[in-house]
Amino acid sequence: MGKKLTARKEDYSKWYNELVVNADLAENSAVRGCMVIKPYGYAIWEKMQAELDRMFKESGHQNAYFPLFVPKSLFEAEEKNAEGFAKECAVVTHYRLKTDPNDNSKLIVDPEAKLEEELIVRPTSEAIIWNTYKGWIQSYRDLPILINQWANVVRWEMRTRLFLRTAEFLWQEGHTAHATKAEAIGEAELMNNIYAEFVENFMAIPVIKGTKSENERFAGAVETYCIEALMQDGKALQAGTSHFLGQNFAKAFDVKFASKEGNLEHVWATSWGVSTRLVGALIMTHSDDNGLVLPPSLAPIQVVIVPIYKGDDQLAQISEVANDIASKLRAAGVSVKYDDRDTQKPGWKFAQYELQGVPVRLAIGPKDLEKGNVELARRDTLTKEVVSQEDVVGIVTGLMTTIQENLFSRAKNYRDEHISKVDSFDEFKEVLKTKGGFLSAHWDGTSETEKAIKDRTKATIRLIPIEGEKEAGQCVFSGKPSQQRVLFAKAY
Amino acid sequence: MGKKLTARKEDYSKWYNELVVNADLAENSAVRGCMVIKPYGYAIWEKMQAELDRMFKESGHQNAYFPLFVPKSLFEAEEKNAEGFAKECAVVTHYRLKTDPNDNSKLIVDPEAKLEEELIVRPTSEAIIWNTYKGWIQSYRDLPILINQWANVVRWEMRTRLFLRTAEFLWQEGHTAHATKAEAIGEAELMNNIYAEFVENFMAIPVIKGTKSENERFAGAVETYCIEALMQDGKALQAGTSHFLGQNFAKAFDVKFASKEGNLEHVWATSWGVSTRLVGALIMTHSDDNGLVLPPSLAPIQVVIVPIYKGDDQLAQISEVANDIASKLRAAGVSVKYDDRDTQKPGWKFAQYELQGVPVRLAIGPKDLEKGNVELARRDTLTKEVVSQEDVVGIVTGLMTTIQENLFSRAKNYRDEHISKVDSFDEFKEVLKTKGGFLSAHWDGTSETEKAIKDRTKATIRLIPIEGEKEAGQCVFSGKPSQQRVLFAKAY
Ligand SMILES: [Zn+2]
Ligand SMILES: [Zn+2]
Repeated sequence: MGKKLTARKEDYSKWYNELVVNADLAENSAVRGCMVIKPYGYAIWEKMQAELDRMFKESGHQNAYFPLFVPKSLFEAEEKNAEGFAKECAVVTHYRLKTDPNDNSKLIVDPEAKLEEELIVRPTSEAIIWNTYKGWIQSYRDLPILINQWANVVRWEMRTRLFLRTAEFLWQEGHTAHATKAEAIGEAELMNNIYAEFVENFMAIPVIKGTKSENERFAGAVETYCIEALMQDGKALQAGTSHFLGQNFAKAFDVKFASKEGNLEHVWATSWGVSTRLVGALIMTHSDDNGLVLPPSLAPIQVVIVPIYKGDDQLAQISEVANDIASKLRAAGVSVKYDDRDTQKPGWKFAQYELQGVPVRLAIGPKDLEKGNVELARRDTLTKEVVSQEDVVGIVTGLMTTIQENLFSRAKNYRDEHISKVDSFDEFKEVLKTKGGFLSAHWDGTSETEKAIKDRTKATIRLIPIEGEKEAGQCVFSGKPSQQRVLFAKAY
Repeated sequence: MGKKLTARKEDYSKWYNELVVNADLAENSAVRGCMVIKPYGYAIWEKMQAELDRMFKESGHQNAYFPLFVPKSLFEAEEKNAEGFAKECAVVTHYRLKTDPNDNSKLIVDPEAKLEEELIVRPTSEAIIWNTYKGWIQSYRDLPILINQWANVVRWEMRTRLFLRTAEFLWQEGHTAHATKAEAIGEAELMNNIYAEFVENFMAIPVIKGTKSENERFAGAVETYCIEALMQDGKALQAGTSHFLGQNFAKAFDVKFASKEGNLEHVWATSWGVSTRLVGALIMTHSDDNGLVLPPSLAPIQVVIVPIYKGDDQLAQISEVANDIASKLRAAGVSVKYDDRDTQKPGWKFAQYELQGVPVRLAIGPKDLEKGNVELARRDTLTKEVVSQEDVVGIVTGLMTTIQENLFSRAKNYRDEHISKVDSFDEFKEVLKTKGGFLSAHWDGTSETEKAIKDRTKATIRLIPIEGEKEAGQCVFSGKPSQQRVLFAKAY
């Protein structure tokens, strides 16, 4: 706390990093690329977890836990998946340290404790899970298997950023097994829809649903469904993915089942996940130059009450009113903090809770006491008004919905304004440069064209939209025929 | 499912392993010493997590997340802690794989991707956390820090057993920082008491509170508080530990604070944890030769209803009654499964739910339908009775408390019967051999004596009791003076 954040216009990426650290969300650790998620940031993640977990369970999924390590021979079994992750794997090669013979206070890796087979720290768990499912599946009666895991994973990224791209991150990964192709595709679509619902309703972030082009598909998937969001700087962010894996993993791990008809068939698979990266999306969708802005559903503290007083008598009078309001709000299901610390001044507290994105701030001073009022400040609009103590509980309770909706519609307006139809490559480059956002353009469907556009502009195909009308046209780059527009953008 | 478990009397350890696997709690994985926690086992762990998390938060703690990896130089900073864990560390030495030049379908560790400094997969997180706290603590105003982490840890154990001792396990680890020694000791004691309350009230496992002898203390602790439980085979199991770490980690990581008086002082620390090992304790406290027995508070399914029917008409009639009972029980907060699958016979279902420890089973057949009755079976006592459909909801709701209490008092009677006062070493050996359990004996307070007894009997000091009267006497081994009896036992 203390000094102001860098303005977004000045340096968006600097603003982001300062916000994450100053609002006490996370910080870099002593381990290259790994972050410490601080209590305030973790409390937001816990709220996301609780809601997702509820949605997963309601849709018939169960949690389980699989090993952190994947033996190299399993890791390499599904070739495309292995290829996709091989370059960013943390590898365990030894299982013991010993005292350094040259310096008794130091430890060295014991060369005699070398593993026969190296262990990969999971970058994703398809391999270890499908190797396990092999033992669980004999007949169609054992299907479907609908399992989710909350876990940490490691991908050795070279350029990391807090929440957005870290060497270790927290996520959930669903891994399901099905008797038919149609059922597996249905599951992959269902989970993509659940993600969309969660991100829109709970995080107040509008998303577009689509599928990925081959270039952007998950390593080992037949089809990747995704939801994409737009950040304030005009860059897209992949908020969640759900993969139809076909029979790729079942074939790699030889997982077959006896069908009702008595045939031995390979099992169909999906996997799907969202991660702590969503906290980055949350920040870059709603926040402003004063700091974090939180939708009420994700706010660890929804309302803060700050007393403005001189002397203990005045504080006692204000506290009586504040505690009464707090207990009524709590009874209405609103989380409230009454900050009567005498170690910090009201102005400091105002700035701190603004920085940390508390949706509603109530202040009570001697004049308010006299007149039976409270000063109410909204974090999303930065507006203030004076309301009567009588009405404040009803108003604040209503604001929980109002603010949630306002944040969503504000973000949706911004997003909608930043989807531009472009019909020539010059226009493509111009709009990308001047306005950013999603470019809705025709594409000939080839990886070559996608790559050529990426090389020239850094924009990639974020998704092939699922919803909306499909109009035919000519590829913005090659002029060849196109079945529908797709969305390009620069992305996180 | 299908074949009976080995009887406990025949081979306790075989019974345990069969139960864990057959009741679908967990299984061994392809990674040496690492287990897969299956959905049913994980659901029990989730219930434990939820209750502990609530207790931690109510006592003022917050969750956070710290990196999986510990750089070797940090790991070795606190010497005793490093020594204690160095021999069982998974070590990451490389961050990339590459295609095997001799076989394109295989991967090998890329020798050019060797880390400058090796990373230890956390066996416990004091080092990485205290290195972080250094940045968070300047003044007494920054204290106390009361943080908990839910995480996986890795200790490379050579002899592993599902839940009880696995190379990777799940746990929570609290790490707190305080301005004074007294406050830190108070925290360590508080958390040991919270563990005792949780294990007794929620898991129905009686425990004894105490401190550890120097031999058994956590590596790096000044004092280790613990709770110990007694398993059915007469062996003790450490159910939770809470450590007063003194200033050891503050000194190792140079963490000082400015006191109110303006002096620069080292911070005082605690850490405390319980793990998935508690699931092992749960099994070995309550279960029987028919399988798992669960206290209602931990049962993923508290009541199962099984219809016994011929034909669809009868099923429809029974289902009407069953669904009515189920919805009334759910309204009373009881979790119910109505198992009307036609793929399995009632006898198979009975055996399955018995194996999985469902506390109450209701069966409804044609005769019950006629007479307005239900057959009720209790898992803890293996008793059956016929009750009227009118009374069943009230009876079952009441049983949730009755069964919980019965399991606790049964386990407590067994435990109390297996605490034997012994006053000579011959008696010590005899009782240990014939009866097992805790031996309450005088000890001269030296590590030499403790070690000599361990070498001769495999029994260790489980704890120095905190509660109860302290009577002086002579050491059971050396005859030297002793201030109080301590509890010896063979242990898991
Ligand atoms: Zn714009
Ligand atoms: Zn006995």
